[in-house]
Amino acid sequence: MEVCTGPLGQGITNAVGLAMAEAHMAATYNTSDFTLFDNHTWVICGDGCLQEGISSEASSLAGHLGLGKLIVLYDDNNITIDGSTDLSFTEDVKKRYEAYGWHVQQVKDVVTQLDDLRAALDAAKKETSKPSLIAINTLIGQGSPSKQGDHSAHGAPLGASDLKGAKEGWGLPPDEMFYIPEDVKTVFQEATAKNESRMAEWQAVFDKFAIAEPVKAEEIQRRFAGQLPADILENMPTFTIGQDKDLATRQYSEQCINAIAPRMPEFVGGSADLTPSNNTRPKGAVDFQKDTPHGRYIRFGIREHAMGAICNGMFAYGGLRPFCATFLTFYGYMAGAVRLSALSQMGIVYIFTHDSIALGEDGPTHQPVETLECMRSTPNLHVWRPADSNEMSAAYASALDHHTTPSAICASRQGVKALFGSSTENGRKGAYIAVDTEGTPDIILVGSGSEVGFCVSAAETLLGQGISARVVSMPCQEVFLSQTMKYQKSVLPGDIPTLSVEASSVHGWHRFSHDQISMGRFGASGPGGKVFEKFGFTASNVTARAIALLEFYKTHGPCPALGNRPLPQFMGMNGNGKH
Amino acid sequence: MEVCTGPLGQGITNAVGLAMAEAHMAATYNTSDFTLFDNHTWVICGDGCLQEGISSEASSLAGHLGLGKLIVLYDDNNITIDGSTDLSFTEDVKKRYEAYGWHVQQVKDVVTQLDDLRAALDAAKKETSKPSLIAINTLIGQGSPSKQGDHSAHGAPLGASDLKGAKEGWGLPPDEMFYIPEDVKTVFQEATAKNESRMAEWQAVFDKFAIAEPVKAEEIQRRFAGQLPADILENMPTFTIGQDKDLATRQYSEQCINAIAPRMPEFVGGSADLTPSNNTRPKGAVDFQKDTPHGRYIRFGIREHAMGAICNGMFAYGGLRPFCATFLTFYGYMAGAVRLSALSQMGIVYIFTHDSIALGEDGPTHQPVETLECMRSTPNLHVWRPADSNEMSAAYASALDHHTTPSAICASRQGVKALFGSSTENGRKGAYIAVDTEGTPDIILVGSGSEVGFCVSAAETLLGQGISARVVSMPCQEVFLSQTMKYQKSVLPGDIPTLSVEASSVHGWHRFSHDQISMGRFGASGPGGKVFEKFGFTASNVTARAIALLEFYKTHGPCPALGNRPLPQFMGMNGNGKH
Repeated sequence: MEVCTGPLGQGITNAVGLAMAEAHMAATYNTSDFTLFDNHTWVICGDGCLQEGISSEASSLAGHLGLGKLIVLYDDNNITIDGSTDLSFTEDVKKRYEAYGWHVQQVKDVVTQLDDLRAALDAAKKETSKPSLIAINTLIGQGSPSKQGDHSAHGAPLGASDLKGAKEGWGLPPDEMFYIPEDVKTVFQEATAKNESRMAEWQAVFDKFAIAEPVKAEEIQRRFAGQLPADILENMPTFTIGQDKDLATRQYSEQCINAIAPRMPEFVGGSADLTPSNNTRPKGAVDFQKDTPHGRYIRFGIREHAMGAICNGMFAYGGLRPFCATFLTFYGYMAGAVRLSALSQMGIVYIFTHDSIALGEDGPTHQPVETLECMRSTPNLHVWRPADSNEMSAAYASALDHHTTPSAICASRQGVKALFGSSTENGRKGAYIAVDTEGTPDIILVGSGSEVGFCVSAAETLLGQGISARVVSMPCQEVFLSQTMKYQKSVLPGDIPTLSVEASSVHGWHRFSHDQISMGRFGASGPGGKVFEKFGFTASNVTARAIALLEFYKTHGPCPALGNRPLPQFMGMNGNGKH
Repeated sequence: MEVCTGPLGQGITNAVGLAMAEAHMAATYNTSDFTLFDNHTWVICGDGCLQEGISSEASSLAGHLGLGKLIVLYDDNNITIDGSTDLSFTEDVKKRYEAYGWHVQQVKDVVTQLDDLRAALDAAKKETSKPSLIAINTLIGQGSPSKQGDHSAHGAPLGASDLKGAKEGWGLPPDEMFYIPEDVKTVFQEATAKNESRMAEWQAVFDKFAIAEPVKAEEIQRRFAGQLPADILENMPTFTIGQDKDLATRQYSEQCINAIAPRMPEFVGGSADLTPSNNTRPKGAVDFQKDTPHGRYIRFGIREHAMGAICNGMFAYGGLRPFCATFLTFYGYMAGAVRLSALSQMGIVYIFTHDSIALGEDGPTHQPVETLECMRSTPNLHVWRPADSNEMSAAYASALDHHTTPSAICASRQGVKALFGSSTENGRKGAYIAVDTEGTPDIILVGSGSEVGFCVSAAETLLGQGISARVVSMPCQEVFLSQTMKYQKSVLPGDIPTLSVEASSVHGWHRFSHDQISMGRFGASGPGGKVFEKFGFTASNVTARAIALLEFYKTHGPCPALGNRPLPQFMGMNGNGKH
């Protein structure tokens, strides 16, 4: 499948993921009799790719993992958009790659000494315990009379005279717009034939394998078709109030992972060195390491950006549903890769724990405030923030069920109370009535994640004061906005005073609510409960703000209708910032 | 001043900025008679810091620039949160830093051979042409009986018995909670005295300098006080319709840079290798390079994340107002650093060109959709998207005028038409009436940046059909929301049908408008105008949607009041997502 490698550094990092996927699939399915997975991963990259931090992260990990079938051709033309690499990039790239544990070669003259490149490719293939970098000195715009070796050849067309000059220099007819030399045509035709025959050979091997190992063969086919195991969605954890223990939602996430991992061999992933905090290592998991590539748990190291792009690469290989994890605030380190999961339609499962200011003592650098809204603004990305165990199961079920949409599952560090109205089925609607009232409610409280609990407590208090409050739990705005307008209106009619409660940026909540309790600033250091209290995330503040909102519409009414007018572009699929 | 180095890799990158600032200030002001700027920059970092891509980017640049007064002490304890660095980080760090052009040393036993560290520090100081890395083998939780060398000592307290055991092992009284040995006290007291005397010496030098070079001395004091030059805000470019040529707003940005740079020596910065596209190099600028540290234009290389954090470090040094630039979509590569500019209250000027799908052929990977809203959701960050030259001047004036708030100035690749109602003064209000009507308008069209032009054209068409449309240009939501409620209501009364037009995520626009023309998906590849057309960013679509909105309220009226109720938390400083 296609990966979008436009932004620099993504391509080489995707390739690390592709090579990891190949190593994993080969270790999982190849036998002494059948070699099903056996390919090299080739990269052509430039100076810019190797300046980006993401490629450093990925290359360090590739060296650590000894990805011997990854071969990078480094187009070392000494030119970037600003001009010569002398302006900013004078490090010894080859030495750096040696330091990463790569096999490094140099080809100085690729034009007149093409055999040098052939020899280097052969040597790279022979070195099976290390990834290979072949640095190749090239000349940008080679043959162009006035732009050869100049950065002007990077971003703009050569122009008529330089184009003509270059064609003449290369012995091509200068005036033909499209021209394919015969020898080139032959090479490609032969390659097509050769590859078709290799494909047939492979198919024959696979057919024999399917006879010898029918269960495994079916599993491979299912995995590459992107189909889930039959029983996966029905076997998500469920929570019984009064029986099960209230935990943090990151622990419910761990329960989901433990439910999925044994049933779904394609569920492969790990954490950016936050395993004990993200709770992402399945019971009995084997680490994916150089000598254990069949392992399904990946130690990404403290490399968030590469982690995301490696998952994209693994997904692109096929047969894998990668997951990865870090703290929610470090989405800011990897947004470039998450965006490409969404754009490339890759159903990566992102797990972001420590999802609010309630993470406490680590302080504002580790407390996300803007992050939920950043992700919600990204097209084709489902942002889940479950309030309890059942909603967490809904989040994982939905994430697995969406093969072409990545999901970001956000989880609390701190404990939460289970909601009476929750169920996996309700959760999968994106928003639902968690606490209902008899008849039309006076007010609606809508929240997500750990803050829904404050709404539930406030509703109880309000009821004692003769005010009936509905509580809507909204674990996923995008999924809710994909429901029928009828369902959306049944949950949030729009003309009943509505107060939203989320410990995050207010942006985006005006479409659902008349007033908002939100984070208008960065957080603070302190125990999580105290920080919540400082910023008004308490049942008593929700109660007080609900009463104030009701009072306001008593004197300034009527309450204006929000959000669910029948203009098709206003709400629902067309106008919700998603497609 | 304080920098927030909590997220890994930021600290060492800030330090590169600090060292660049020192080199620059020394080259700018020191004379043969007066040494005003002369300090080392010290870093203590761990394994995690050196895994993050941002530190790779920064270290490569530091080596390129030969920052000889930067000394990094690498606390090499082989432990991260997941466990041993053997899990994911087995590269040869020292060799990698040699590849970057650093001076690299190893101290193997810092406990019994402390003199080895002293010698390494001396050697690092003597090497003045290269930054230094001193890798120091340490033992996490050293002395703790059961946790020494274990990752459990990283994130949690040692516990009573290990704490006691460690204290005993170190010869400290085991039961005292706070205890400072006499020799340690003496060292710190002597250091205080020594530093006070050095400060007095420095002050004496500066006082003499102030007599010899009064103008320069005053300039230094002004710069470190964070005050602007007296005439800077009055000398921003202005545009006269009918006289000046319509350009792309990135070209207006360039005009602002050229107006500021000669008057404001502290305005120092550059681009992440997009100089010819970002238009950020002032006329006659000198590059900041190893041999020309007085230069004020920085070639950051293709290193967006490090660029942001280096600017934070330069700002923290004092006396500098750093600016930096890339394409708007690559905010996703550097969000981690921009967030810390906002949290640390650093008035960095971020310049993001190619600010919409209208950048055209580079396609969706390079077309921001979610980015404006990501930034607007970040507290203490002003997001500017000027529609024309006067608004661009307003953006730069505001950015310079806000010393404790970073500003992100977004600019178009393509040309825009100047607005009749624009002025720097109007622009600085964050939103204003660009095209007014006689009496109360039938409808309000509100937009930002290049899309305001479509609103103006639509208003003209609507007027021909007897519909009076006000056009509001909103270059900066945050600044608009800091205006008085009276002013806000005079621009956007809230109960007049309002249509917003911005080629970006719809999120955040519901507070200002009843209907929205926005981007509900990723963009497309093609000429910019064609891409705009494909997604409805045309005068004719704005006209049609305006008419539809009016018709809707004729049958489904009245138009509900938006956003400007007197509840204090609803709009304005408290509830606008900013503080």
